[in-house]
Formats: sequence, structure tokens, C-alpha cells
Amino acid sequence: MSRGFFITFEGLDGSGKSTQLAGLKAWLEARGESVTATRQPGGTHIGDGIRGLLLDSRTHDLSPLAELGLMFADRAQSIAEVIGPALERGDVVLCDRFTDSTEAYQGGGRQLGSRIVLDLHARLCGGLQPDLTFLLLPNLQRALQRARRRNARSDAEGSPGANENRFEREDQAFYRRVLNKYREIAARESGRVAVIEGDGSIDEVREQIAKLTEKRLRLRASHEKGRP
Amino acid sequence: MSRGFFITFEGLDGSGKSTQLAGLKAWLEARGESVTATRQPGGTHIGDGIRGLLLDSRTHDLSPLAELGLMFADRAQSIAEVIGPALERGDVVLCDRFTDSTEAYQGGGRQLGSRIVLDLHARLCGGLQPDLTFLLLPNLQRALQRARRRNARSDAEGSPGANENRFEREDQAFYRRVLNKYREIAARESGRVAVIEGDGSIDEVREQIAKLTEKRLRLRASHEKGRP
Repeated sequence: MSRGFFITFEGLDGSGKSTQLAGLKAWLEARGESVTATRQPGGTHIGDGIRGLLLDSRTHDLSPLAELGLMFADRAQSIAEVIGPALERGDVVLCDRFTDSTEAYQGGGRQLGSRIVLDLHARLCGGLQPDLTFLLLPNLQRALQRARRRNARSDAEGSPGANENRFEREDQAFYRRVLNKYREIAARESGRVAVIEGDGSIDEVREQIAKLTEKRLRLRASHEKGRP
Repeated sequence: MSRGFFITFEGLDGSGKSTQLAGLKAWLEARGESVTATRQPGGTHIGDGIRGLLLDSRTHDLSPLAELGLMFADRAQSIAEVIGPALERGDVVLCDRFTDSTEAYQGGGRQLGSRIVLDLHARLCGGLQPDLTFLLLPNLQRALQRARRRNARSDAEGSPGANENRFEREDQAFYRRVLNKYREIAARESGRVAVIEGDGSIDEVREQIAKLTEKRLRLRASHEKGRP
């Protein structure tokens, strides 16, 4: 059905996802591709409202199942309004977090398990799968430090705690469960998920991502040529 | 598990649900019952935020699947925060709309079908069922007239269109599908759903509802006595 190419970026906050997504977007555009970049939660009018509810520090007692419902409401809207139409147009779609995040954070971190997440994905998102997923896994300590530095910076800038949202208050055991689930997903879907580990510089990782994307796009083009 | 008694009110806007819920609440309290009254969507901090997103007239392009996700996020939160604890305390819980509404409006009206609604209910609400449901089905024309009069009144009161929300802009074919699905649910769950039809006065309907509630509460009490 879709003629475009769907790439998602996954990993903890502070793993460099957003930086790398911006880098790949620039690289693809320089190559002449039409690119749509978005993020989850958010990226639509309704999604920004949902993102506000989810990240709201005052929403302390949000139930894990309600959180899950909100995540998928956001995703369903994003698919209907942004991702689906862009893939139909033939764009390369780059998305900062997708269902792997929900499986890792809600399924793993909050211990709801994978099954409920994959069931809701099938029901509310028609089972849409990315063509390629970059899972960025720098050293856990380093990622947490980066996230903390980011918060400290925003404090110093006079918006105290603006980034200290609900997720960042979770403890290390939570993040270990998230990482374990991410690794489980990568093992299960090794054809789709490219794991980028270690302490490469931003430029090194960017090059790695561009190379793999180029290879996959070339593969897709040759497949399409082969079609009757 | 739950020691309380869970009663829901269902029907179209303008069917008199909220009036009857308030009447039953007063009747139960006069009888010495501890009552928790709530509504869906809404009734919690997060639920009011979701209700705002759902009823927001500007949210024109809300996808039906995103709407469904929001409905169940609201319901999961309501169960975790309000309904579940109240039933645990032994309260009679009165809820203005529950999953039957979602099955009727999203499953029937928006033609998503019952199965996805019942699946999400099982997943996100643990399949919690009311002990008793009052489905108020006055004449369709009369209900629409009442809803319209209510809008006209709010216009005259200087808040033009405040109530003319997304659902009320739907056409008559939509409402017929909602009603048909409500009737289907009532037939399927005849032990739980009491259908109240016709053009009884508010007081007549109130009496009917109180009588049936009394009967069911007495039945429950005798069952509990019979337990070892």
C-alpha cells in the first residue's frame, strides 16, 4: 500500500535520537529525497494535547493503562494525519519514537508486558511497522548524565524543572527494564532494528546511520525495479 | 473482588441520563447508601483533560481510532482512580456513560464495530462490567429536540455554541446507528441492561429506576447472606 519509506529512532532520552534524526533528515534532503519528520507523542494538534497530559508533572497518579491508551491515541492520530499520508506521497518518514518505545517503557519499564502493547498496536495502528529502526544504545550512565545535564541547563536558564518530567523521575531499575525490553525487541526483529551501541561521536554515528539508510533505500529501489 | 454495586446510565444526549442519575443518587442516599457518582469521559484530573480534547470543536480531524484510544485512556484512569476504589469501599457507584457508550457511538455510530471496543475494554479496563445498566431510550425526535433546545438556551445565555460539540454535529444516520447498537447490546446483555422506553415523565422514570435498583440491591443482599 505505502510507497514511501518509514524510519524510526528509538532509545532512552539523552541517547542522541533527536540529533541523529535531524542529521539524517539533512542528509536525505541533500540527496533529493522528500522527507517528513515527526515525533511521538506529539506532532499533531491532538497529539500535542496528549503529550501535554503525559508529560505534565502534576499528572502524578496517571494509571499505567491510561498512559498506554493515551500513547496509542496519539499514535493512531499521527498515523492518520501525518505518517500515513506522507508514506502515500512517497516520502521518507522519520519518526522520533514509535511503538518500540511503548513496548520498552510501558511494556518493560512499567511491566505491563509486550502482549498488551502489540495487541493495541494491531488494533489501533493497523500493525504499521517501520521499514528500518535505529536503536541508539550509548552507555546507560552516559545517557542519564546527558539527560541530567539537560535538566540542569534548563534550570539555570530560569525554567526550573521544565524538563524534569514524569519519566525522568523514574529510578534506575525502571531504565534497566526499558533497556532489556529494547534489546529483546532488537533480537526479535533483527531484520528491522539496527542497534547502534558504544561511544561513537555524533559524526561517527551520523555516518553509520546514513550508510545503512543508503543501503536500504538502494535495496528498496532495486526491489521496485524488479516488480512487473 | 468488588464489594460495592456498579450502576451505569446510557442513552443519547438529551435522554435524561444525568437527571435520572442525580435522582437515583438522592434516593440511595436517603436510604443510607454511600454513593459515588461520576461520568465518562471526565471525572478525574486527567479525564477532564481528555474530555476537553474530545469535545473540543476545533478537533475536527480526530481520527476514529484516536478517539477510541482517548475514550479508553479516560476509562482506565476513572477505574483506577474513582470507580475501583469506590467499589472496594462498598459504595454504590453511579456512572454517566461507560463502555456501552463507546460500543454504541464508536462501534456503531462511527462503524468501527463492536469487536475492537470489547477487545480494548478487556485489555485496558480488565473487562469490568456494571451490575446494572439503565438504557434510556425516549423517542429519538424528542431527544434530539431536547438536545437542540439545550443548545439554543446556552446560545441565548451568551455562550454561543458552547454545547454544539463534535458529537452533536453528527447527522441522523449516525444517531440511528448508535441507537441500533444500543438495542443490540441490550438484547445481548439482557440480564444487565434495563431498557427504559417511551415518554414517561421524569418522576415516572425516576420511580421505575428506584424500584428496579431496590430489587437488585435486595437480591444482592440475600445472595451475600447466603454465602458461607
